[in-house]
Amino acid sequence: MVDTRKIEPVSWSNDRLVLMDQRLLPGKEEYLQLETVAEAARAITDLVVRGAPAIGVTAAYGAVLAARARLDENSDDWKSLLLQDLDMLAAARPTAVNLAWAVDRMRLCIETTQPSELLGSMFELACLIHRQDIEANYLMGDLGAELMDADSGILTHCNAGALATAGYGTALGVIRSAWKAGKVSRVFADETRPWLQGARLTAWELARSEIPVTLIADSAAATFMREGKVQWVVVGADRITANGDVINKIGTYSLAVLARAHGVRFMVVAPTSTVDHQTASGDKVSIEARDWSEIWAATGSERPPEGVTVSNRVFDVTPAELVDVIVTEKGCLTAPFGQAIASLKE
Amino acid sequence: MVDTRKIEPVSWSNDRLVLMDQRLLPGKEEYLQLETVAEAARAITDLVVRGAPAIGVTAAYGAVLAARARLDENSDDWKSLLLQDLDMLAAARPTAVNLAWAVDRMRLCIETTQPSELLGSMFELACLIHRQDIEANYLMGDLGAELMDADSGILTHCNAGALATAGYGTALGVIRSAWKAGKVSRVFADETRPWLQGARLTAWELARSEIPVTLIADSAAATFMREGKVQWVVVGADRITANGDVINKIGTYSLAVLARAHGVRFMVVAPTSTVDHQTASGDKVSIEARDWSEIWAATGSERPPEGVTVSNRVFDVTPAELVDVIVTEKGCLTAPFGQAIASLKE
Repeated sequence: MVDTRKIEPVSWSNDRLVLMDQRLLPGKEEYLQLETVAEAARAITDLVVRGAPAIGVTAAYGAVLAARARLDENSDDWKSLLLQDLDMLAAARPTAVNLAWAVDRMRLCIETTQPSELLGSMFELACLIHRQDIEANYLMGDLGAELMDADSGILTHCNAGALATAGYGTALGVIRSAWKAGKVSRVFADETRPWLQGARLTAWELARSEIPVTLIADSAAATFMREGKVQWVVVGADRITANGDVINKIGTYSLAVLARAHGVRFMVVAPTSTVDHQTASGDKVSIEARDWSEIWAATGSERPPEGVTVSNRVFDVTPAELVDVIVTEKGCLTAPFGQAIASLKE
Repeated sequence: MVDTRKIEPVSWSNDRLVLMDQRLLPGKEEYLQLETVAEAARAITDLVVRGAPAIGVTAAYGAVLAARARLDENSDDWKSLLLQDLDMLAAARPTAVNLAWAVDRMRLCIETTQPSELLGSMFELACLIHRQDIEANYLMGDLGAELMDADSGILTHCNAGALATAGYGTALGVIRSAWKAGKVSRVFADETRPWLQGARLTAWELARSEIPVTLIADSAAATFMREGKVQWVVVGADRITANGDVINKIGTYSLAVLARAHGVRFMVVAPTSTVDHQTASGDKVSIEARDWSEIWAATGSERPPEGVTVSNRVFDVTPAELVDVIVTEKGCLTAPFGQAIASLKE
């Protein structure tokens, strides 16, 4: 029997790469069936799939599609053509760390495997990448949930869910595990301006999993904390620096300050691949600012009046001292974070 | 010479009531010329004009339009018909305190004035109500600006500006006065979800007055505070209870907590008519929640997935202890607020 509540943004079925088209959520749940590497690359570029881990898994299967086609063609230069395909795939969204990482693993496989075994090996590797991501999420889910008491209200921001990963999710993975353990009273999802990942993705994902969720304006979070309805803020991370500073969606820092002021605990859930050991602290990270139109579009008018500047910073930095725990697949990290993070390298 | 930067949401010109159509901002600046009380009532209902003080002034001029028509008709029961017109006007938005207050003043004028002098008296009274609101704003503007040091960054929320009053504004009045005194480096305007009053009205209004303004997502306010770019948060108020608690647009409480955490000062600007001496504290005030669709509409999908609850509280309560100063036309109030507010009654 099919589990109708399972969310699979990326899967492999009937020799095809199947992607949920996240651009259509929450209005429509539709899946694209991809047969070529070009289609896979375009799907990544066009945001059919988003979230670094989900993109990595998509790229791995995309490489399998490329190999199948090149091996079928059986031309003399199949290998160099295949490596070109992988370059194209890696360029689909150049800033996604997991994309480059997955493509590199596939390249190594191509270089070290006999042609007769190549397609099988590449497919096995893609499945492994896929499975490992899900397993890490389940591990983190259980580790994070263990820290919670019964009847916890949880507030989350953006979407660090099944939709951003191979399945289950990081922050939402912890929420899922805590829910299964009967510890969650309600989840509050910030709508997360300007892209509304909370409204469009997180609310949909939690409702789909039958976890009670209330969508709120970002600026309402403090009121729910004040009323004692929130015990934990649980978020993902785009990057964690060597001292434990957390770079994540704009609004995360605000929640961390508000959580501390209200005696609410603050949990970051991220695989160890998110840790940037090379960067000492968050103030060394340059924060991406995107186009003003992403903020302005909501007004319905074409462009801001002359003289209005629009700031659209996408991320912010939450200093380690406001974080209570960082949950990784290798265990829970607590202060002093510098030491805990350094020990991950051992 | 016309001051092209002056913002007049309500004015009287060529024997007509002239209203800026705020529904079209910031895309278009258009004015409606109204000749009848029915048009004035409809403009209030349809949100052509918004903000309690602006609605009060509109109603006062609307009563003049009614009186002119009834006196022209010269029927035997002109007075009862006129009082019916005023009832209709008062019902245009029954929850606006200033609307009832302005209509009541007009009723008293009708009851106590000779018919031959009535139109002149009512017009004089409307002009007085109009002028007094603007004068109160200028007074508050100067009192609030005096508290600021040079080179202040100011963050504001929602729209407590010229557009919400007869002109000049309450919170934005202080910002205008501080700007004229050379004390403002930049204003940060929260976009203010879900209605985007900050994006649609405040940014437009400040740019129109050539005051440098940066529009930000509500959740980005904390980051600008952390970077030392904000010295004051300045907001209006919908109601102030006897102990100094402030009921204002959702997100105000969040800003007050963040301000305190960052050593940023928090100023509330509101005329004494905003003070509710009958209500002891904010927790006694029931907070209006509006329809889910106001939040949800931004996603572009028709309705939330089954199982998603949407919370759309319009206001929140900022406890007096997070407020540094309340600026009224009768002076600046500071802690202990209960005492300061009680003294306003004397």
